[in-house]
Amino acid sequence: MSILVVGSVAYDDITSPSGSVKNILGGAATYFSLAASYFTKVRVVAVVGDDFGPEQERVFHKRGIDTRGIERAKGKTFRWGGSYFDNLNEAKTDFTDLNVFETFQPRIPQEYEDTEFLFLANIQPTLQANVRRKMNGVRLTGCDTMNYWIKGTPRELAETLKLVDVLLINDTEAKMLAGETNLPRAAQKILAMGPKALVIKHGEYGATIFFREGAFGIGRHPFRAPALPIDEVKDPTGAGDSFAGGFMGYLASQEEVNREVLKRALFYGGVMGSFAVERFGTERLQSLNREEIDARFQIFRELTHLE
Amino acid sequence: MSILVVGSVAYDDITSPSGSVKNILGGAATYFSLAASYFTKVRVVAVVGDDFGPEQERVFHKRGIDTRGIERAKGKTFRWGGSYFDNLNEAKTDFTDLNVFETFQPRIPQEYEDTEFLFLANIQPTLQANVRRKMNGVRLTGCDTMNYWIKGTPRELAETLKLVDVLLINDTEAKMLAGETNLPRAAQKILAMGPKALVIKHGEYGATIFFREGAFGIGRHPFRAPALPIDEVKDPTGAGDSFAGGFMGYLASQEEVNREVLKRALFYGGVMGSFAVERFGTERLQSLNREEIDARFQIFRELTHLE
Repeated sequence: MSILVVGSVAYDDITSPSGSVKNILGGAATYFSLAASYFTKVRVVAVVGDDFGPEQERVFHKRGIDTRGIERAKGKTFRWGGSYFDNLNEAKTDFTDLNVFETFQPRIPQEYEDTEFLFLANIQPTLQANVRRKMNGVRLTGCDTMNYWIKGTPRELAETLKLVDVLLINDTEAKMLAGETNLPRAAQKILAMGPKALVIKHGEYGATIFFREGAFGIGRHPFRAPALPIDEVKDPTGAGDSFAGGFMGYLASQEEVNREVLKRALFYGGVMGSFAVERFGTERLQSLNREEIDARFQIFRELTHLE
Repeated sequence: MSILVVGSVAYDDITSPSGSVKNILGGAATYFSLAASYFTKVRVVAVVGDDFGPEQERVFHKRGIDTRGIERAKGKTFRWGGSYFDNLNEAKTDFTDLNVFETFQPRIPQEYEDTEFLFLANIQPTLQANVRRKMNGVRLTGCDTMNYWIKGTPRELAETLKLVDVLLINDTEAKMLAGETNLPRAAQKILAMGPKALVIKHGEYGATIFFREGAFGIGRHPFRAPALPIDEVKDPTGAGDSFAGGFMGYLASQEEVNREVLKRALFYGGVMGSFAVERFGTERLQSLNREEIDARFQIFRELTHLE
């Protein structure tokens, strides 16, 4: 089945202990769609500027991603600069130039209206809600957000959360959103806000999925997928979006969304996140194949599997 | 088989968001031996003062723990006071009164010399090394340490690490000991210092065991055991020592130490740590039974188990 992602396409400048790159293709929708493209048909709604050319477009097309929803606006594409130091889990933002992204109003092409799965990457919550309302036929909606919206637009975010099936955020965001430092209790509070399931990403420790009682016709016992301990993390940018791409892409590739499928999706999320960080930007995500992905899935599985 | 733990027995004052207790029985050797007692025969070498009475001794004896190695010295027992705030992973030390523990020289009773498994809880590294050298016949030695010794007595600690089979420490300690922020690389550096295996405890995210190439006749692929997301952590004190007790106690209960046994031991470590934090002090560890322990082992297993 197909999946639509609505979010940012950007140019990034990134510095990490492994080196430095400038003007590389980035953005949540880019990482997400590349990661999801190994599982299912992907469509993108985003906005770019005059500086987005055929070379960038080719990155999407080589992975069979439908870019008809990428709007060209007058001006420059969104630019972000970030640096990582010893703690690779935290980026220091060097600059954010929103450019054409500042006035982004997602427009869904008519050809996209039959999309079955929807992912609302990290954009302003009211824009997320508007997209969700337009896509009435979707089977499942995933959603990301960040501290900026949790603090700045809590009411708008609360409205959006009523409309989504799965929220994917990290530990810090979950604790902030719930106003609660204990993670399982934070999860219960967030599930009460609307989502049927909540994926909390723990960085190098993996991710946990919490379920609302009765959601997906399954029990509420959480499930955890570990992450692979990686010898060298070159660039953590996009790890969360790649996780979301693997998770949602795998869900969209399956006939049914049940507990076992959600569990496997959580593993595939971790797998795609772990590939993303091995090289700068989207380099690794551009050149994978399904055999490599499934080999790593097996390694992840073995990592915690008891006979 | 039997296991000997050498470490502290203490009285603790603890404050956490769940409440406050004073003068409760604590100490690494106490938590360790209670946790290990559900798996195997436990012996303790420690020192206490005049204020350690039959009531405290009964806690050990009710669990069948051999306390002949607990030395009575003139003076007061080691006392520690700590507070936990929102971040339950970190204690603020309110006071440390070493008392009789300050001049602790572990003496191994003759009846203990045939012990097969040894655990060197967190004490001065040279004392750990001396105990290890006296216990020549042991099959496997586990060891704990802390930032204080990593920073303060690195050479002494390096000597100790040459004598131990499994080192159990947390993320922060591992990164500090290796001088390396990437965990898998830190693990390889530490394994090069001596231990055959390294258990890195991740608090609420579980623990990972890294193996030296060829150690225990198994490959070097790491293994991870998740921890249960716990709704209420009352008192994190002793979680690491209880983890070590479950891990080492289970190893000591098995005929052979192989990869599968080490994997299960890692799960049992997490299980015992998770019980410990449910109540203040050692309360929960005093009143468990093997059925409850194995039921939680199954829950942990299910937490990451794919069909």
